Amino acid sequence: MKKAIFYHAGCPVCVSAEKDLLNLIPKDLVEVIHLGTDKSKIKEAENAGVLSVPALVLVNGNVLHINFGASIEDVK
Amino acid sequence: MKKAIFYHAGCPVCVSAEKDLLNLIPKDLVEVIHLGTDKSKIKEAENAGVLSVPALVLVNGNVLHINFGASIEDVK
Repeated sequence: MKKAIFYHAGCPVCVSAEKDLLNLIPKDLVEVIHLGTDKSKIKEAENAGVLSVPALVLVNGNVLHINFGASIEDVK
Repeated sequence: MKKAIFYHAGCPVCVSAEKDLLNLIPKDLVEVIHLGTDKSKIKEAENAGVLSVPALVLVNGNVLHINFGASIEDVK
C-alpha cells in the first residue's frame, strides 16, 4: 500500500507539533522524510507540490502544508 | 480519553484534503467541528489559538494550521 509522506526539515518551531500529528496517524500509513538530512529528496518533494515544511503529501497527491516551518527554498 | 479537535468551515479549497487527513487519523482520536454551522464554537476555537481553518487542535494544546481555507474572522 502506498503511504502518505510527511516531509520536514527538523523545523524547531513545530517539532513537537509534528510528533503529535504522527502520534495520531498510524505508523504504517505514513513515511517520514527529513529534507535537512536527506537533500536528495528535495526535488521529489518539490515535484509533489511541497512549498514549505512541514508538509504531508497524501496518496491521492494532495499536499497539506501544516503551519510554517521553512520554505522549501530555505531547506536547499 | 480527550480527542483532538478538527475545526473547519466547509472551506471549498480543502474539503477533499480535510477528508484525506481524517481518513489517516483514526475516528476515535479526533472530533470534527464545523464552525460555519456551529458558530457557538467559534469562541472556543479562538481560545484554543485557532487563527484560520482548517486547523487541528491537539490534546496537548498545540494547534496545527493546515493549508489556508479562511481566517477565523471570516468565519464569524
